[in-house]
Amino acid sequence: MVKAVFPGSFDPLTFGHLDVISRSALLFDQVIVAVGINTSKTAMFTTEEKITLISNNTKNLKNVSVLPMPDLTFKFVSSVGADVIVRGIRNVRDYEYERDIAEINHRLGNVDTVLLPSKAVYQDISSSNLKEVAKFGADISHFVPENVIKLIKLKTK
Amino acid sequence: MVKAVFPGSFDPLTFGHLDVISRSALLFDQVIVAVGINTSKTAMFTTEEKITLISNNTKNLKNVSVLPMPDLTFKFVSSVGADVIVRGIRNVRDYEYERDIAEINHRLGNVDTVLLPSKAVYQDISSSNLKEVAKFGADISHFVPENVIKLIKLKTK
Amino acid sequence: MVKAVFPGSFDPLTFGHLDVISRSALLFDQVIVAVGINTSKTAMFTTEEKITLISNNTKNLKNVSVLPMPDLTFKFVSSVGADVIVRGIRNVRDYEYERDIAEINHRLGNVDTVLLPSKAVYQDISSSNLKEVAKFGADISHFVPENVIKLIKLKTK
Amino acid sequence: MVKAVFPGSFDPLTFGHLDVISRSALLFDQVIVAVGINTSKTAMFTTEEKITLISNNTKNLKNVSVLPMPDLTFKFVSSVGADVIVRGIRNVRDYEYERDIAEINHRLGNVDTVLLPSKAVYQDISSSNLKEVAKFGADISHFVPENVIKLIKLKTK
Amino acid sequence: MVKAVFPGSFDPLTFGHLDVISRSALLFDQVIVAVGINTSKTAMFTTEEKITLISNNTKNLKNVSVLPMPDLTFKFVSSVGADVIVRGIRNVRDYEYERDIAEINHRLGNVDTVLLPSKAVYQDISSSNLKEVAKFGADISHFVPENVIKLIKLKTK
Amino acid sequence: MVKAVFPGSFDPLTFGHLDVISRSALLFDQVIVAVGINTSKTAMFTTEEKITLISNNTKNLKNVSVLPMPDLTFKFVSSVGADVIVRGIRNVRDYEYERDIAEINHRLGNVDTVLLPSKAVYQDISSSNLKEVAKFGADISHFVPENVIKLIKLKTK
Repeated sequence: MVKAVFPGSFDPLTFGHLDVISRSALLFDQVIVAVGINTSKTAMFTTEEKITLISNNTKNLKNVSVLPMPDLTFKFVSSVGADVIVRGIRNVRDYEYERDIAEINHRLGNVDTVLLPSKAVYQDISSSNLKEVAKFGADISHFVPENVIKLIKLKTK
Repeated sequence: MVKAVFPGSFDPLTFGHLDVISRSALLFDQVIVAVGINTSKTAMFTTEEKITLISNNTKNLKNVSVLPMPDLTFKFVSSVGADVIVRGIRNVRDYEYERDIAEINHRLGNVDTVLLPSKAVYQDISSSNLKEVAKFGADISHFVPENVIKLIKLKTK
Repeated sequence: MVKAVFPGSFDPLTFGHLDVISRSALLFDQVIVAVGINTSKTAMFTTEEKITLISNNTKNLKNVSVLPMPDLTFKFVSSVGADVIVRGIRNVRDYEYERDIAEINHRLGNVDTVLLPSKAVYQDISSSNLKEVAKFGADISHFVPENVIKLIKLKTK
Repeated sequence: MVKAVFPGSFDPLTFGHLDVISRSALLFDQVIVAVGINTSKTAMFTTEEKITLISNNTKNLKNVSVLPMPDLTFKFVSSVGADVIVRGIRNVRDYEYERDIAEINHRLGNVDTVLLPSKAVYQDISSSNLKEVAKFGADISHFVPENVIKLIKLKTK
Repeated sequence: MVKAVFPGSFDPLTFGHLDVISRSALLFDQVIVAVGINTSKTAMFTTEEKITLISNNTKNLKNVSVLPMPDLTFKFVSSVGADVIVRGIRNVRDYEYERDIAEINHRLGNVDTVLLPSKAVYQDISSSNLKEVAKFGADISHFVPENVIKLIKLKTK
Repeated sequence: MVKAVFPGSFDPLTFGHLDVISRSALLFDQVIVAVGINTSKTAMFTTEEKITLISNNTKNLKNVSVLPMPDLTFKFVSSVGADVIVRGIRNVRDYEYERDIAEINHRLGNVDTVLLPSKAVYQDISSSNLKEVAKFGADISHFVPENVIKLIKLKTK
């Protein structure tokens, strides 16, 4: 039984995230989407909103659950008895960032990390790109699912 | 039950490869190390020698087996009923190469790829680096296990 | 007749920008320098100051005009009936950023992007580098034209 | 009137190349696809075969022509009175290579280069990837048009 | 006699910095660790605290001294009669940043820069990573020496 | 007294190499340019020709000497009692290659490596670029000094 944790800020949930979640659900027995309380950047969504959005978009994936992550990833992984961290990478910048975080999590928590290369079709999705597009009221349907669009529109009125 | 395939030329097997194999063995129910018959580059070891070296160095990993891979990876994956391809990445160059191969394998064989970021201690291991060091008779014990060293010495006498 | 838009924050105009503008002016029938109202970063110059600086430094280029860009690039491109977006790239970081923005602009506005590789002599010019140098009163004449130097000195007195 | 040259080895022509050609045809008055006689690598196709394949796949583009390029790019550009070189880039490796070639062509031939970022869907297309897939008889229809597939099959029988 | 300056914000001093300092001390007759008054980012440590921490951790290196750097690096280098700037690089992002800063320092101050590639074991050390780990009270002994740990604990109580 | 070794294949000597040599000569008491007998690639120049070309172009640098390097770099460094290896880097590809070689030389020979970032003006110089330009008889005076041009012309007649 292999339990994976997919940590992130999910501010907001995107199709890129959903692709990593659905792919992980096929590879591991259990997948916990861990919503980090992002300390440095001001978040657009509350942790509760994020959890609701992720849950509603993963109902079909029976082995996927969503939890808030109030601590460092490796501590959370140990607290839920998980075996591996999963992250997606879209470009060189992501790769170099995840390389170091994987080394730190292995050293501090003796937990491994697998990286899922983004599908080409999702590689341009980033929360900063989509928030800029949303701010000007343009079409973000390539970036995020319907219920996220609705909530963004409410927040950017 | 998740079966993974770790394809490569393994010319020769290195500690970097062994790290990917042992990590994969913890993440997936079965791991098949698939020794590709590398078409373009002249190999230093025969396919049989490679398979023997890998088998002898993974005896402790009960869920790991080694097979020759005479075909494209996605065809081999389908032929052995595997679910995912595993590859290791040491730097940006590896990442960009694996990104495209993952996209091709997904399109042609509908099979996913997970990338294991190399541990920092193994990132400088490459078959070209180690062959250059070996050619001048220097110490390659950081790069490869003992039985590989012996066979390299025989071949570079 | 091919009309190009060169969008940016131009905070301030640099020789790197002017190189992209003059090169574009040779390649396209019309070039509109579109001064974005940069939402996230606090700008050093007002939009009006930027437009004046760009206009005064491109008087010799008859097919170049300057406009404020209050909206997303692809919407602006459509509003002025332009055919292509032009951007300069100085390094890998720029390339990866522009790659995704080009994909988004093509998907949302069906408009193409051409990238002009920076000349080596200009690749170290960035608004953050030059503002740091200017703040300490050092020579910024490699970075920006004379009238920009004057205005920066006024602002950093 | 702006005339562009798109130089390459086109061994063989791919959908990535065709995307660059059709995009260039919209941006410049004339586009010459210049088939380089690639000195270092052994080519799979003759120059004549390449020219025929490119011509047959660009019949709909009235402002596109195809010529053999027996010399360095900047000399060819000057010999046909062209104004700019167009190249496609798929990743960081391509970017860094093209950056230097653009600098050399500008210094030696005073000719500029524009880079077209590959669309995400084509970024995994490379002649080495597609030749490897073709060699094993797998589906290369994502990589190359029909007439190229036919010729490859003849050559790899 | 060759005098080197190792400039940085040292917020805080890390084992990566200490590795660069000790390596520089072997290569150059004198090494001045120049503590920059970092203008843009809010610092966790005062300049005095930084200087004390660096001094206490380099007592064994007789040719190393520590000074505050209130100005641009190239001006400081000239003011102390130094000959070269030393910087460490951990990844591609660092390399591209240092490449441009080296070009600017050479142009403005006619001073050269040498880059020390980080040892693999230290490449994941960054002030942002360690501050995030420290904030959650986890073990930062891989990142920083003992006296820095103590001061961080005081500051993050 | 600090003795540096600048190893390379120098096939042929370029202005990029000469820039690294002259900069090293200012930083270290002695600089040995070590001409490697490049095992994998077919060299255009003999080792003797290379040594003559380098010597003739560094006569003004009293602390620079040139030696053939028949062995691995770290063994050569030890054999001449040197303290550090110097290498130049022009781009990301160079950086990632040198990062690993520096780690190997440090592990096998306990010798450090300093990297000199190429000046922007020289970053496009590579032996493959210049040989391609030379083969077609174009101007290579930006790449290599006069005596190298003469010898190349002789060899490519």
